[in-house]
Amino acid sequence: MIKIVEISLLYDFYGQLLTLKQQKVIDLYYNQDLSLGEIAENLNITRQAVYDNIKRAEKLLRNYENKLHLIEKFTRQQEKIKQIKLKIQEYKKLIDKDNNNNLTQLFQNIENILDELLIE
Amino acid sequence: MIKIVEISLLYDFYGQLLTLKQQKVIDLYYNQDLSLGEIAENLNITRQAVYDNIKRAEKLLRNYENKLHLIEKFTRQQEKIKQIKLKIQEYKKLIDKDNNNNLTQLFQNIENILDELLIE
Repeated sequence: MIKIVEISLLYDFYGQLLTLKQQKVIDLYYNQDLSLGEIAENLNITRQAVYDNIKRAEKLLRNYENKLHLIEKFTRQQEKIKQIKLKIQEYKKLIDKDNNNNLTQLFQNIENILDELLIE
Repeated sequence: MIKIVEISLLYDFYGQLLTLKQQKVIDLYYNQDLSLGEIAENLNITRQAVYDNIKRAEKLLRNYENKLHLIEKFTRQQEKIKQIKLKIQEYKKLIDKDNNNNLTQLFQNIENILDELLIE
């Protein structure tokens, strides 16, 4: 995975476990795309301090995923939910809607719940 | 929620973020149902140290849930998956299986995937 995508994803899942300063530097660097110099100026700390904070935060975020595997589990789960959606969509193509109102309604209900489960 | 159930659940979700000693005392106290005295003897530390470790670990576990809300999200998600299962089961009662082989197969496939998503 490209590092910027990897860290943004890790930050979505585990950002709340970082200190406020670590959250700030990760957000500014990876989400807002500011340079180390700009962040240093913004937070009134040295460029080296920004760099150290980012490196420390990245290490913590990776460490959380190594322990909890939330992204791994989430990705697997989303895949399964998409599989169900695909199966229903394939079946819907086969049925005659006018003659299967109950079934059409059932599929619609299931799809609505699946959409709530899918975060995209 | 009863405290023993609450802490066991928190431990399932966030136990990996505790130190090995904290994991040990929580497991022995809440899952294995040992007394403070028995744990103290078992780990060769004082009863007070066991108590302090448990209190510290409980606080950390609750803190992780307050920040990440994994149990809250997980519970909500499991509810939705169960809703889909119920809807399918209700519909299956209505259909004549012999005349709806494709549909029966579809429902079986969906249920299999839902069962993988349901951790009970």
